[in-house]
Amino acid sequence: MSKQAEKTPEWISTPPKPGTYRSILKWGAPDGFKHPSAGFLKVIQQTLGLSDADLKRGPDTGDQPVKHDIPCRLSSDDMAALAAIVGEQNIATDDYSRVLHSSGKAMEDLIQLRTGRAEHVADCVVHPRDKKDVAAIVAYCHQKKVPARVYGGGSSVTLGLDGVGGGVTLVMGTHMNRVIEFNEANQTITVEAGIMGPAYEELLNNAPDRFGASHRYTGGHFPQSFEYSSVGGWVVTLGSGQLSSYYGDAYDLVVSQEYVTPVGSFKTLDYPGTATGPKVNDIMKGSEGCFGVLVGLTMKVFRYMPENTRRFSYMFPDWESAVKAARNISQGEFGMPSVLRISDVEETDVAMNMYGIAGTPADTFLRLRGMKPGRRCLMLGQADGEKGFAANVKKKVGRVCRACGGIYLTTYPASKWFASRFKDPYMREDLNDIGILIDTLETSVTWDNLHHVHQGVRKYIKDRVRAVCMTHSSHFYAQGTNLYFIFIMPMAGAEEFRTFQRGIIDAIVEHGGSLSHHHGVGRMMGPKMERHLGAEQMEVLRALKRHFDPHNIMNPGGTLGLDG
Amino acid sequence: MSKQAEKTPEWISTPPKPGTYRSILKWGAPDGFKHPSAGFLKVIQQTLGLSDADLKRGPDTGDQPVKHDIPCRLSSDDMAALAAIVGEQNIATDDYSRVLHSSGKAMEDLIQLRTGRAEHVADCVVHPRDKKDVAAIVAYCHQKKVPARVYGGGSSVTLGLDGVGGGVTLVMGTHMNRVIEFNEANQTITVEAGIMGPAYEELLNNAPDRFGASHRYTGGHFPQSFEYSSVGGWVVTLGSGQLSSYYGDAYDLVVSQEYVTPVGSFKTLDYPGTATGPKVNDIMKGSEGCFGVLVGLTMKVFRYMPENTRRFSYMFPDWESAVKAARNISQGEFGMPSVLRISDVEETDVAMNMYGIAGTPADTFLRLRGMKPGRRCLMLGQADGEKGFAANVKKKVGRVCRACGGIYLTTYPASKWFASRFKDPYMREDLNDIGILIDTLETSVTWDNLHHVHQGVRKYIKDRVRAVCMTHSSHFYAQGTNLYFIFIMPMAGAEEFRTFQRGIIDAIVEHGGSLSHHHGVGRMMGPKMERHLGAEQMEVLRALKRHFDPHNIMNPGGTLGLDG
Repeated sequence: MSKQAEKTPEWISTPPKPGTYRSILKWGAPDGFKHPSAGFLKVIQQTLGLSDADLKRGPDTGDQPVKHDIPCRLSSDDMAALAAIVGEQNIATDDYSRVLHSSGKAMEDLIQLRTGRAEHVADCVVHPRDKKDVAAIVAYCHQKKVPARVYGGGSSVTLGLDGVGGGVTLVMGTHMNRVIEFNEANQTITVEAGIMGPAYEELLNNAPDRFGASHRYTGGHFPQSFEYSSVGGWVVTLGSGQLSSYYGDAYDLVVSQEYVTPVGSFKTLDYPGTATGPKVNDIMKGSEGCFGVLVGLTMKVFRYMPENTRRFSYMFPDWESAVKAARNISQGEFGMPSVLRISDVEETDVAMNMYGIAGTPADTFLRLRGMKPGRRCLMLGQADGEKGFAANVKKKVGRVCRACGGIYLTTYPASKWFASRFKDPYMREDLNDIGILIDTLETSVTWDNLHHVHQGVRKYIKDRVRAVCMTHSSHFYAQGTNLYFIFIMPMAGAEEFRTFQRGIIDAIVEHGGSLSHHHGVGRMMGPKMERHLGAEQMEVLRALKRHFDPHNIMNPGGTLGLDG
Repeated sequence: MSKQAEKTPEWISTPPKPGTYRSILKWGAPDGFKHPSAGFLKVIQQTLGLSDADLKRGPDTGDQPVKHDIPCRLSSDDMAALAAIVGEQNIATDDYSRVLHSSGKAMEDLIQLRTGRAEHVADCVVHPRDKKDVAAIVAYCHQKKVPARVYGGGSSVTLGLDGVGGGVTLVMGTHMNRVIEFNEANQTITVEAGIMGPAYEELLNNAPDRFGASHRYTGGHFPQSFEYSSVGGWVVTLGSGQLSSYYGDAYDLVVSQEYVTPVGSFKTLDYPGTATGPKVNDIMKGSEGCFGVLVGLTMKVFRYMPENTRRFSYMFPDWESAVKAARNISQGEFGMPSVLRISDVEETDVAMNMYGIAGTPADTFLRLRGMKPGRRCLMLGQADGEKGFAANVKKKVGRVCRACGGIYLTTYPASKWFASRFKDPYMREDLNDIGILIDTLETSVTWDNLHHVHQGVRKYIKDRVRAVCMTHSSHFYAQGTNLYFIFIMPMAGAEEFRTFQRGIIDAIVEHGGSLSHHHGVGRMMGPKMERHLGAEQMEVLRALKRHFDPHNIMNPGGTLGLDG
């Protein structure tokens, strides 16, 4: 089989032409690439039963220029009114802008974009300069019953950006990316919602230079989409970063928010803890643009001390042992590692190939110690914080892992993972180019139901297709964790894919997993919300929707399951 | 001056007669007492300028039997319907039951009860046996537009229990105090809302015996009212425990809740983290009975390892240094102490008298080291968790404190505080008996506004009355803390007290403190909510109120500022 992988497919390694569908569907930087390794491809070929000849580039690479004939449903009066608010230079109606800002990075988006088709696109794209612009736009849209939605980093994987019903898309990153206040006493930073992850983190890391601070800081939030996500987007979609087990989810990181809604604007208060009734700050978290536009927010920041980082990796004889160790770490009261990841059997086997460990003397050593391929499972992680804290976490993690049958693997796998942690999405367009589909779904589970969900979802997938199905847990709480499923299978058409993927979501929920741990709801999970939460809870969300957005103009078309 | 205190007032040391107003106003156990120490009384006399002769027992001790002529506004049909739901034995309409279950422990409650008067009392008191009873009662009240409210532990200090408009009060602790499930894998316990703090903690501490668990557990929540508070009450009023800096506030501790509302019943889901839109679990936290009745809840529990507890106490040359040290501890990324308390100058002076340190060789030592009375400030605390974690916290606390000019005071003051931490409220009836008023107000502050609020509120009080005003911070976050004001002054009439106290609340808010950190809103803070949160946020709460309780039957009469 290894012969098959020797002949590497001809990956596309040139940036897509500007203005093409490919430039929209491609992940990340136009000149950014991470081609699948030979080891990874070998596993895929073996599992899917594909020969080298099967790995040929298909016709749908999305290289055609973006062009469509979807009419603009706004009147010339509307356009003039919007232009008067933001200025002519901050409004666009060209085909490309409309499609770009109505597309996310869900597999469904990509399948469609590859074929050079656009469906639900905004009528016009505006780039508000400040919150006053946003207030004027939202007021206008409210009055005229024109749909309005927000484009942040553009990395939604839940069809959250679809321009259903046309209308206006507000692009937050163009101008609304400023720091409003850095407050070292309170360890907070107040920013406009459109600031992107890397710019935000860079400012905080260099707080002594940037703000005259006494310490360096970190935002502590690093989703895989970090480089292409906005701070506001983190909060309205309830994202989680790779270091969330220590720093918390976006949910935990936001101190206060400022919103523009159809019925008015407000800023929640900045207190660290209050007993003044239900918190409107909470009510807005995860609202996915359905209640209003998040224009600014105050976030917690943390002292940045990378010199204290301690990495670790362990191998366990089986998945059950790895889960047990992760649970004992999460419940051990010695503080949480920032990064903690456990990979199931199939993901471990792929990782051992990807990291080039399989077949080496290290692999032989592991096998001799009872860590057999097809059973063994990998854990990797990192402790952060104050020096003594991080050292104690690493030490106690070791104690727990050894008690659960784990063997220390040095820091190597953790460092390998860390180095490439934002790059994996680049492999998607490569695999799609050669007719291989790769997608992910994720869920939250309590500890006592983890195995049931894991086994049930794997069975659902494996019973239906010849597929790679890798699973890991990567966000830990004393009460449970997430399960992140990556499935790789032959490319399918849009409808066939949708049916299969919605089936997986149903399998997750039927086995007792949550509809999402950190991807959000969007229009993908929207139709399943009522069954998941129950009618009574959905009615609460609908009551809030009616309050904030009586004309249903804010991100309409099924987001959060509130309409359509 | 010390001569004045030598003659101790004759404290009442016998349990109040059953059925009297005093049996309602008295704190805690009928035979529980903690009389003010001579040192404490001396400080009060000095500050208030009172001679021994001034400390004589007043006429209003509330010893008369509870009797009133407030008619029952429910019809005999209503009474029969309610009795049919819960059974005759679980319904009461006697004068005593009605007053008892319509009274909290606010100073305003106590002033009124002392004079043998009752004002806002429920028409009848019911003791539901289970959530089905609650659902039937709420449905009946909704249909007939009869007010309904909940009595948990009865320790509200915000007039949250007033029976405004009569109607039905549901007493949760009588029957609805059972454990539904202890789940060691998930580290959660599911209980009925009426279970009281001590019973709850005792079960968890003895989990190996009670539930066959592998470990002992703690709920981690110890408000000063711990012994007279219910688990459900902790969550619906957003309480904080004395160990909250490590374990979190009630807000953080609750995983899911089950509610009966006028428009239906629901249970939120148990996932440790989700991205499925705004969380209804959050929306219900702090709802203070205005949206529905909390019947059951799932709480986080933590491994109980008292053998790892490490206490510490420090003295600082001044308040600014103590605050700085507390901030650096809270932001140090080495994990939080469970208990952390800093006392301002006036409270420190009282504590040195109360703990019997003032005037001893230890005091002389402190003075020689620059810790002068009238300037010095006390910190005490405790670290919990895994052994290495707790040891590292204590060590790093020491490093921070020394850098801020603190001197280690051994564990003695911390242990003294710990031993009497639930007993201080017993002093209130003693002081009230001799014509001295003692009350507390509290607020949440960001670090950068702590001194402004502290100074402003002290000035407000001191400008108006000759009063002891002690302040501490006792709940810490990286972004700020609380300020807890204890004021002691000559007894006032109900109206005079109300005016003065509302003035303090206004001073807190005007200086930028929150309306409450952990006491809640009730009817006391209700009228101030709109100005504090702003009209837009209040409208969100009102929209939720309209959704859950369209007939405004749930705890009506100004709670949370939602009506009246």
